Amino acid sequence: MKAARSHTDGRVRAVVDRVLPEVGGGRFPVKRIVGDAMAVTAHAFTDGHDAIACMLGFRHESESEWTEVPMTALVNDEWRGEFVLEKLGRYRYTVTAWVDHFLSWRNELKRRVDPADIASAALVGGKLIAEAANRAGRSDGARLRQWGKQLIAATDAEEVKRIALDEEMSEIVQRHPDRRYAAAYGRELSIVVDRERARYSSWYELFPRSTSPDPGRAGTLRDTEARLPYVKALGFDVLYLPPIHPIGRVKRKGKNNTLTPTADDVGSPWAIGSEEGGHKTVHPELGTLDDFRSLVAAARGLDIDIAMDIAFQCAPDHPYVKGHPEWFTWRPDGTVQYAENPPKKYQDIYPFNFESDDWMALWQELKSVFDFWIDQGVTVFRVDNPHTKPFPFWEWLVTEIKTEHPEVIFLAEAFTRPKIMHRLAKLGYTQSYTYYAWRNTKHELIEYFTELSSGPGREYFRPNVWPNTPDILTEYLQHGGRPAFSARLLLAATLAASYGIYGPAFELIERVPREPGSEEYLHSEKYEVRTWDLERPESLRFLIARVNAIRRDNPALQNDATLTFAETDSDQLIAYVKATPDLSNALLIVVNLDPHHRQSGWVEIDPPKLDLEPDHPYQVHDLLTDARYLWHGRRNFVELEPGMGHVFVVRRRVRDERDFDYFV
Amino acid sequence: MKAARSHTDGRVRAVVDRVLPEVGGGRFPVKRIVGDAMAVTAHAFTDGHDAIACMLGFRHESESEWTEVPMTALVNDEWRGEFVLEKLGRYRYTVTAWVDHFLSWRNELKRRVDPADIASAALVGGKLIAEAANRAGRSDGARLRQWGKQLIAATDAEEVKRIALDEEMSEIVQRHPDRRYAAAYGRELSIVVDRERARYSSWYELFPRSTSPDPGRAGTLRDTEARLPYVKALGFDVLYLPPIHPIGRVKRKGKNNTLTPTADDVGSPWAIGSEEGGHKTVHPELGTLDDFRSLVAAARGLDIDIAMDIAFQCAPDHPYVKGHPEWFTWRPDGTVQYAENPPKKYQDIYPFNFESDDWMALWQELKSVFDFWIDQGVTVFRVDNPHTKPFPFWEWLVTEIKTEHPEVIFLAEAFTRPKIMHRLAKLGYTQSYTYYAWRNTKHELIEYFTELSSGPGREYFRPNVWPNTPDILTEYLQHGGRPAFSARLLLAATLAASYGIYGPAFELIERVPREPGSEEYLHSEKYEVRTWDLERPESLRFLIARVNAIRRDNPALQNDATLTFAETDSDQLIAYVKATPDLSNALLIVVNLDPHHRQSGWVEIDPPKLDLEPDHPYQVHDLLTDARYLWHGRRNFVELEPGMGHVFVVRRRVRDERDFDYFV
Repeated sequence: MKAARSHTDGRVRAVVDRVLPEVGGGRFPVKRIVGDAMAVTAHAFTDGHDAIACMLGFRHESESEWTEVPMTALVNDEWRGEFVLEKLGRYRYTVTAWVDHFLSWRNELKRRVDPADIASAALVGGKLIAEAANRAGRSDGARLRQWGKQLIAATDAEEVKRIALDEEMSEIVQRHPDRRYAAAYGRELSIVVDRERARYSSWYELFPRSTSPDPGRAGTLRDTEARLPYVKALGFDVLYLPPIHPIGRVKRKGKNNTLTPTADDVGSPWAIGSEEGGHKTVHPELGTLDDFRSLVAAARGLDIDIAMDIAFQCAPDHPYVKGHPEWFTWRPDGTVQYAENPPKKYQDIYPFNFESDDWMALWQELKSVFDFWIDQGVTVFRVDNPHTKPFPFWEWLVTEIKTEHPEVIFLAEAFTRPKIMHRLAKLGYTQSYTYYAWRNTKHELIEYFTELSSGPGREYFRPNVWPNTPDILTEYLQHGGRPAFSARLLLAATLAASYGIYGPAFELIERVPREPGSEEYLHSEKYEVRTWDLERPESLRFLIARVNAIRRDNPALQNDATLTFAETDSDQLIAYVKATPDLSNALLIVVNLDPHHRQSGWVEIDPPKLDLEPDHPYQVHDLLTDARYLWHGRRNFVELEPGMGHVFVVRRRVRDERDFDYFV
Repeated sequence: MKAARSHTDGRVRAVVDRVLPEVGGGRFPVKRIVGDAMAVTAHAFTDGHDAIACMLGFRHESESEWTEVPMTALVNDEWRGEFVLEKLGRYRYTVTAWVDHFLSWRNELKRRVDPADIASAALVGGKLIAEAANRAGRSDGARLRQWGKQLIAATDAEEVKRIALDEEMSEIVQRHPDRRYAAAYGRELSIVVDRERARYSSWYELFPRSTSPDPGRAGTLRDTEARLPYVKALGFDVLYLPPIHPIGRVKRKGKNNTLTPTADDVGSPWAIGSEEGGHKTVHPELGTLDDFRSLVAAARGLDIDIAMDIAFQCAPDHPYVKGHPEWFTWRPDGTVQYAENPPKKYQDIYPFNFESDDWMALWQELKSVFDFWIDQGVTVFRVDNPHTKPFPFWEWLVTEIKTEHPEVIFLAEAFTRPKIMHRLAKLGYTQSYTYYAWRNTKHELIEYFTELSSGPGREYFRPNVWPNTPDILTEYLQHGGRPAFSARLLLAATLAASYGIYGPAFELIERVPREPGSEEYLHSEKYEVRTWDLERPESLRFLIARVNAIRRDNPALQNDATLTFAETDSDQLIAYVKATPDLSNALLIVVNLDPHHRQSGWVEIDPPKLDLEPDHPYQVHDLLTDARYLWHGRRNFVELEPGMGHVFVVRRRVRDERDFDYFV
């Protein structure tokens, strides 16, 4: 006889279905942060009228034993349970349910009225209790046996009910259930548990060679180390460096991406490798490996992570090209295939051929690059163009590395089509770059951040939003000037839990494109050394420092899930609430998207949703300016200078006196 | 080295994800009808800029070979393919994709402009063509080799492009792809393909013992056979009979479900089994097995399916109780556990104990009941209370039977909680009873039928809606009289592709409950023989016949997916459009839900959605009354008597003359 497909025993009557959260039917892990409570729901039921018990099982992958917590019935055959994720790494979880005959018997007994019925039910209960006693240990078993005897000896219906419904004894029985016919969900789901910085991080990107205080010479890693207090003062906690490896000399690009370099042109840091070394080498012009380790250690002292750029591609003179010609694509004319997207050509870049017969060795070598830098103390990697390398490679690499080093954070620099970005996030990337730079209107911002904060990707896709990068100088920034930069900073820092800027270009309002219609910077640092005057009066550094301090003080800003948009009557005024689930921290942010004109209008919120009494005034306290306003009801008026915003903390009255100190 | 989990070869670069439709991550089949085009979508892509090919594979489970059809790229990395389901039974389908280097090369060549580039690309193309030639057979191979030679011999860029982009040769290459690194979806999904009656059916239920034309004796299967022309004239295509087996004598219930039967009480057909036999026996009072076979054959001659009631439960004197005591639950007091839901007791019914150690034999015996009746010609089963038997049992049983007899239809009589009803549908039940009887207001009807026609269950849950059953006489029918019956009939027959009535109680407006507040009939046929005067003038039979004829003539009414609701300005007027996807058949139905008062109001439709020109009049032709009206624009007026309705076919003008004949 062929048994039903998912059960070997036909007596398994309980059913478990639709365990959530899950990604791709359990194919991919969901993501959480250490310390999070992991809430799981499931559908569970059985045939007929019997009661079931339903358990949530979980284990850290380092443990062989499963831990179980009981789930609680909600309405409509849905169950809920939760546990705390105490360790970094991967957890597994699943749900098990079984028909609980003792509980069924107890529920039915409560409803019985016929004395003959109750007498018969006492015997049935005695049998169930005796069976539980046999499953229990010595002490519980003895207590249950005594109870069972009392029950059977009871002489009238009322006595039976009184004895049978004893809560304490019932709990003892529940500790020793009959799980012979327990139903498993059939799939184990998994969770990747990261450290807090995976969820909440503030990134600052700079080119080490542009950190020299002396315009006469290029910057080094030591200069970068000297820049750390500045980065710390701005309030950033990740300092991301473009590649620090030797730069190829063959086909090197000149200033402004020209094909005609001069002898003193420094080349693009992403054209990696020369006779001086490759991906595991520090560019001699930047310093030594010791300098790098010193930088990492100094940053750590300030609670700043150094984020390393990993760009898996080679300059023509990278040692890999001679050492492992089989890792590249050779054309019939005897040349190596350079990177191209016809008619564009990137002759200074050779991509790896992941279809090489020697792919296993290539994978291992590339993983060893990460291992090398992890050994130097790096725990954050920004991976360049991951979408041009095979997905199975990333799934393997990220999983392997995070198994050994669960604290490592991978940021995917994949500015590409949505499904590809999502795939990389599903396969393990901790954070992902986004389309934020190109979402500038109110409608675009609301649509995009609604998707990011509450769309199906929320279980695995952690956005990291950047108003600019060395490759992206948007038209909005080009034409909007300082107000545009301030609006984009406020939005990034308050809409998303993780954001970053490419500086000092950002805070110094660098905004001239290479040519009209281009998003490339004129005199891009990608191709030349720049010197920046950090003291320029128009710098946004004080605003940035203030905003990052507000982020640090307000947990609502440290989580993407806390966002809901609010209505305004102006297309130039965007408003949103960020509030922790318990409402202990509730912010209302309003930004003027217009970089040219002052804008005013009415902002509408729903006071009861913020635990505000509809008929009482409440205080909004602007954390940017320290100004406080007394607001009433749903609609209140705001007026903002170009590109400026309010970051209000919303406080309800706790006493009736008209004293601001009583707002909390 | 541990390879990525889903791939054994790291060179598999294409990705296939989110193949739809699917139910429960592929755990359950979707349902379709023979002859349907099966449309499948998937996400498929690869890293980088390469082109991919994407194929939809399918096979009937009786075939070992897969058939493939190419999928077409839609936007945003989504692909679509379809195939026709030519056979009953189970199909499997899945999606495969691979990086297509030839197609990538061809796409890039189109964009190349540099002559040196193009010359180099010609060599690359020659190599790809030679590889394709080696994969091809003799004839294609020879053609490809010649083409490759021409390409390599080409002397200038224009000639290369002209030769390389030859469409015909490109198609030959596509026939011989390099599938070494093809990516599979990783799951095979399945489809259950039923005959048309699974999607579109009109059911009539009657008690054979009440079919006698002679009030002096009870009806028989021969009388039932004589009733077939009546059922046919009403337009039904499934005739459902309550159980026809011997009825238990022990604990038999009396008239109106009393515990005090007299010697001549006939008992409930659902209290199955006596000394005369059990589930494979015809009740001697109804006739013989030959009579039953004759009935099935006569019905078949009228294209009517006889639906058999399968109720897996036993009267105390069922032969199973003595023959297989291990299949029942024995209480410590030595009695068999009867059915109960405390404080209610059903002493005339013994449920099976599916947790019996002998469950395998029990399963086999119960399956043999179906097999027995299939051998007598039955292909439709209405299963009583399937939700009180284990789910794995049904999955096994339905799958086994439909593997041998894919034409068999199972209707689940599970009036229970939503997830349980859906589980039975997912596990294989062809059709399901619904909550229709208790959805009476406009709001309730819109909400429920929107869920049924477009909710997630639409891939597997086929509703069968009944205004009444022998167990359900709703308050709306009790108090609304004939107009209530007519409204509920019109709604059932036009909202759902499958519906049924319990007659002759329904058409004869039987509506007195056993007691106030009860949904049970007074003098219920469940407990006594009734005689019905089919000629009573108030009978709804002509309306029913007309409605069923309209259903037969209008494909839009034969499918649940064709429904969209329309606005009216009255809570008593419900309106909806049923239209085939190609709009060749478009109906507008309006029903007055008020059984007591005439109602009028404005009905709003969107003319362009029905392919009507917004500025031209169109005709609505009431198929119930044959009246025709000329309507204009979005809003038109209707007035309806209590419980009556319009079933309009909507016709657009094809000429400009004002002649009704030109509406189609």
